[in-house]
Amino acid sequence: MHSFQIGILGATGAVGQKFIRLLQEHPWFTIKALGASERSSGKKYSEAVHWIEPIELPLEVAEIKVDDCDPSAFSGVDFVFSGLDSSVATEIERNFAEAGIPVISNAKNYRMDESVPLMIPEVNPGHADLIKTQTFSSDGSGWIVTNPNCVSVPLAMSLKPLQDEFGVSSVVVTSMQSVSGAGYPGVPSLDIIANVVPFIGGEEDKIQTESAKLLGTLGSGTVDFAKMDIQATAVRVPTIEGHLLSVSAGLLDTPSTLEDVSRAITEWESPIADLDLPSSPEKPVKLYTENRFPQPRLHTDREGGMQTAIGRLRKGTVLDIGYVTMAHNTVRGAAGGAILNAELLVAKEYIK
Amino acid sequence: MHSFQIGILGATGAVGQKFIRLLQEHPWFTIKALGASERSSGKKYSEAVHWIEPIELPLEVAEIKVDDCDPSAFSGVDFVFSGLDSSVATEIERNFAEAGIPVISNAKNYRMDESVPLMIPEVNPGHADLIKTQTFSSDGSGWIVTNPNCVSVPLAMSLKPLQDEFGVSSVVVTSMQSVSGAGYPGVPSLDIIANVVPFIGGEEDKIQTESAKLLGTLGSGTVDFAKMDIQATAVRVPTIEGHLLSVSAGLLDTPSTLEDVSRAITEWESPIADLDLPSSPEKPVKLYTENRFPQPRLHTDREGGMQTAIGRLRKGTVLDIGYVTMAHNTVRGAAGGAILNAELLVAKEYIK
Amino acid sequence: MHSFQIGILGATGAVGQKFIRLLQEHPWFTIKALGASERSSGKKYSEAVHWIEPIELPLEVAEIKVDDCDPSAFSGVDFVFSGLDSSVATEIERNFAEAGIPVISNAKNYRMDESVPLMIPEVNPGHADLIKTQTFSSDGSGWIVTNPNCVSVPLAMSLKPLQDEFGVSSVVVTSMQSVSGAGYPGVPSLDIIANVVPFIGGEEDKIQTESAKLLGTLGSGTVDFAKMDIQATAVRVPTIEGHLLSVSAGLLDTPSTLEDVSRAITEWESPIADLDLPSSPEKPVKLYTENRFPQPRLHTDREGGMQTAIGRLRKGTVLDIGYVTMAHNTVRGAAGGAILNAELLVAKEYIK
Amino acid sequence: MHSFQIGILGATGAVGQKFIRLLQEHPWFTIKALGASERSSGKKYSEAVHWIEPIELPLEVAEIKVDDCDPSAFSGVDFVFSGLDSSVATEIERNFAEAGIPVISNAKNYRMDESVPLMIPEVNPGHADLIKTQTFSSDGSGWIVTNPNCVSVPLAMSLKPLQDEFGVSSVVVTSMQSVSGAGYPGVPSLDIIANVVPFIGGEEDKIQTESAKLLGTLGSGTVDFAKMDIQATAVRVPTIEGHLLSVSAGLLDTPSTLEDVSRAITEWESPIADLDLPSSPEKPVKLYTENRFPQPRLHTDREGGMQTAIGRLRKGTVLDIGYVTMAHNTVRGAAGGAILNAELLVAKEYIK
Repeated sequence: MHSFQIGILGATGAVGQKFIRLLQEHPWFTIKALGASERSSGKKYSEAVHWIEPIELPLEVAEIKVDDCDPSAFSGVDFVFSGLDSSVATEIERNFAEAGIPVISNAKNYRMDESVPLMIPEVNPGHADLIKTQTFSSDGSGWIVTNPNCVSVPLAMSLKPLQDEFGVSSVVVTSMQSVSGAGYPGVPSLDIIANVVPFIGGEEDKIQTESAKLLGTLGSGTVDFAKMDIQATAVRVPTIEGHLLSVSAGLLDTPSTLEDVSRAITEWESPIADLDLPSSPEKPVKLYTENRFPQPRLHTDREGGMQTAIGRLRKGTVLDIGYVTMAHNTVRGAAGGAILNAELLVAKEYIK
Repeated sequence: MHSFQIGILGATGAVGQKFIRLLQEHPWFTIKALGASERSSGKKYSEAVHWIEPIELPLEVAEIKVDDCDPSAFSGVDFVFSGLDSSVATEIERNFAEAGIPVISNAKNYRMDESVPLMIPEVNPGHADLIKTQTFSSDGSGWIVTNPNCVSVPLAMSLKPLQDEFGVSSVVVTSMQSVSGAGYPGVPSLDIIANVVPFIGGEEDKIQTESAKLLGTLGSGTVDFAKMDIQATAVRVPTIEGHLLSVSAGLLDTPSTLEDVSRAITEWESPIADLDLPSSPEKPVKLYTENRFPQPRLHTDREGGMQTAIGRLRKGTVLDIGYVTMAHNTVRGAAGGAILNAELLVAKEYIK
Repeated sequence: MHSFQIGILGATGAVGQKFIRLLQEHPWFTIKALGASERSSGKKYSEAVHWIEPIELPLEVAEIKVDDCDPSAFSGVDFVFSGLDSSVATEIERNFAEAGIPVISNAKNYRMDESVPLMIPEVNPGHADLIKTQTFSSDGSGWIVTNPNCVSVPLAMSLKPLQDEFGVSSVVVTSMQSVSGAGYPGVPSLDIIANVVPFIGGEEDKIQTESAKLLGTLGSGTVDFAKMDIQATAVRVPTIEGHLLSVSAGLLDTPSTLEDVSRAITEWESPIADLDLPSSPEKPVKLYTENRFPQPRLHTDREGGMQTAIGRLRKGTVLDIGYVTMAHNTVRGAAGGAILNAELLVAKEYIK
Repeated sequence: MHSFQIGILGATGAVGQKFIRLLQEHPWFTIKALGASERSSGKKYSEAVHWIEPIELPLEVAEIKVDDCDPSAFSGVDFVFSGLDSSVATEIERNFAEAGIPVISNAKNYRMDESVPLMIPEVNPGHADLIKTQTFSSDGSGWIVTNPNCVSVPLAMSLKPLQDEFGVSSVVVTSMQSVSGAGYPGVPSLDIIANVVPFIGGEEDKIQTESAKLLGTLGSGTVDFAKMDIQATAVRVPTIEGHLLSVSAGLLDTPSTLEDVSRAITEWESPIADLDLPSSPEKPVKLYTENRFPQPRLHTDREGGMQTAIGRLRKGTVLDIGYVTMAHNTVRGAAGGAILNAELLVAKEYIK
């Protein structure tokens, strides 16, 4: 049985709290160290955090003393999860990697770095091998692996079966994103109650570039990006959890019937299915056939928030097909995605 | 000065109430008769209606006795507005037209009828002349004119300047629609609070067909539909009023710069600007340049709810451009649109 | 081990669906029969229901053929749960009781009936003995037991420790009730998004009379109602689940300190603690000390939705103390409360 | 005709923006100077502000250069409105008063100061004479007048007719407060969407003390506070504008019938009715008789947001009567209240 001591960077933020919740009874990973900003450092976690998760703060975590995000304070851990704010992640994550501590990061800072895997285990598990090209530490003991932003997850997960079967040439997507995607305090309630805000800074670029990297192929030490045009519009809607995407996609090989597309999705097999990772959903992608589904409030928690939902699959008039897709943005699209990455890296023996 | 006595069919419903609110101080039209279903017939309006508008029910309307939707009870009116439910509109509206009473309808039933104008005054005022092809009444005194569904309004309004300047070949649109679009009681709160429902029955078809008719040209007695592919996804979001659309559009003549597109919108002139109709907005289309605008809660009431908003205009990667657009679904997209149609028909002397 | 076959009356409604969800893996009770209105009768349950629960409809229930709510169709069951609408519950529930089939009902119809227990197991388990006074069936095999409305649950649960320790003389309460309390379709979204509706028909009366019965004592075959004045205001707020009550209470013996009150709550012992019923929460009442808690969205699901939360306990200026309390209205305040009643009645061998 | 040049302190905040909106076409007051924090000082207002009002930022205000909140920069104004944050208001407002510039403040800092009027024109206009006891400036030219917090407004407005007719001995109130009451960015959306937060820091104390001062009587140079016990619970609900209060009140003289109470409210005459102030509502208090009214979303804007609504009036069992009351928290309860105070002070010639 695997058993690892882990640390969490950015432990008091919304993503950090989600890590704590999801790791509460994790069979492999035990929280040993928590890092946060100076304001929190030195305090007991329960005193440093403004706890916003619905479960009670686990007692054993409540008592942990929060440290600065400095590698010297994390010497006992096997690796760290990073929920750091992008304003500080560049330097801190590099420090950890240079100090020989692997970083499984949810921050955006290194996602597009040539040598850093941007990874969804079911989509591009092989990209993990980019780790070997990293030079943060001389002995290769420290490295960085990232998971994508919360919209690219359902987008890439839903496109992957299509790419495998037909090829994907172009995508027009409107993502309707929940408020938890902006962290805490995040979106002011005055902005979003009974409202839609048609802009989320930086989001549309990330959707376009990260999806192309995720769906790309690993050549000799570098990722060849997928050649597909993605036109994205990201808006904020008053939902709590779950980003819902309206997708129109052009395919390279036109399927003869809609059933062919439907079958490509339902019969698609996850490349990591046989690894039986603890956080891996039984069914990574679920195709709903009832028109009114999937819905953020009803279905975002299915399979512990790790399942990607697809629905409303239909033929298109401008692009070949249309559908909606959804994933839990703070679980599958953030902390849960990072944890699944770590589990994959254990299985691949990058973490040992 | 014009002065007309009007009736309202479906007066107790959500659209009917909006007609009453918008006509409260109308300079030309005075409410004389109200029609509703049997359940309400014979009662004073104040007793028949479950009033949901924020203004106080106007006293002079409160006292009107509600009639059956039968032409015989409306003999004194110059024309009627119809906010009838589609389940009964086909027969009732025909009855009125056959009885020589013009019907300005918000119902969908006759919108796609060959001889019936489907009209947005700023988009296709000339379609009014279809009236002459109608045969409901032998002397031509009775006829039907319709306004489009609430999504086609901002879609057609925002596409019109582009069509005029560049031509439009294809449109991918996701409409995020407010709950008032479903009438009253409409959407159950359990379905939509903190949620998005990715389906609205019949809506996507209407968007595609109605927009093509609206943007078509009137040939010899028939409308030649606009040749553009429209791929629509209609979802319900928890907003009160204002449908916000995320639009990607392919143009026939590629504009050299985004400024050309921007200029085409801001310099576009409404063909009815010089008619000075009472409900006509000063600026039918407003282009917002601040990224976070337009928003349903903040901007849907601008110019009495009659202005169409455009924002987030930018270049696209799959289709030439992307933007968002929005209009007040129960004012501009329903009762207010019908009233403006009536005003135009007065100016054009179809109503006299 | 106990093992009972049960039926559900009103199975397609919101409460019926909650019964199905909560009984999905119940150790004692297995669903054998489902009753609904004529419209559904004869169909497979999956075809009759508009499923609104977040879990997938359990396969074994999906296949059950729905019956009329007639005792003859339920001959194989040990008892039935009733989630019937009050418009039909009076007759149907009596029919079942007369046919010798016990009814554990969530409907309001028999709650104030002299011979019918209105019961919260932790508050007045002894009231179960009222069953013996019932005369529905000649051999006593058929009877009715009810649980209170969803507001009386947290009110009575929170008052019980105070009543035991100090006595309660008067209560002023404002209950802020979630939309699920109105069933499905229930509250129109147009009425409640970004709004509060200051009235819920019939609710205030129920709070006052049911609480007095719940907190009353069983004398010789009848319940002596608690002598306390209750002044209630019931409003609807845009929350999904969880009714939050603002309570001010006058006590008979004035506690010397707030700590005395706090201790009375935290040290209160549930009279059914040692029965270890499957649906019984470990901690029936939890006192939060953080000012911002409890909150419907965060805490209503604690202990499977069966825990009553109390918070903001403080001294009052008009009445002795003030506090807020909350319970899950469709679990603890409806289906879950009924199931716990059934479990108690098994333990007491009324069901065997 | 009156004509005054005014300044606004805290001009970029939510209250400051509301001042600008409400003064846009004010017949007496013209905005000449805007003060804000260092961060904004020196910029054009349109560049300093994150505009959140639904109207377009008035052009003539957009161009004003923002100053520091220093009296020297406001020498040309007749008086200032203050929408300052309480963290800075104490010193800045004193500076202005000492410099001979009257301050009409919405901040809480001086509300309970013995010499400072805390004023609702319809409730206690006579308290204005406290100004004479102020010693900020040697010649009496500079002084401070305040309006109460946004909950005390509807509470005092609704109690005033009862106090006049019956006397009020005790009040138990639960205020359900909208998110705009917390300013901008204010309440995080993650905290309040589909939720209720049962605590608002400092609010309950303010309700109790400010209401007693408002309903007190001006003796010889000091206010004798009203002798009534007020027990308040303040919670946050997901509404945009309008605080709704559930009130139970004990009266000194018990009215014989509910109609007596109803008449006391409807026949109550505002002491400032004959002054015809520009912002004065025609009907300061409106009694709704339909159970489902008043509602924040429907009625909070009535009479420009200056009307206080009462509804659900009924007999009580613990205290004599129960009712709900509501006022627009950022208009009547903040900027609009301050403007009405200024208008009264013009009428009383304190401003001239």
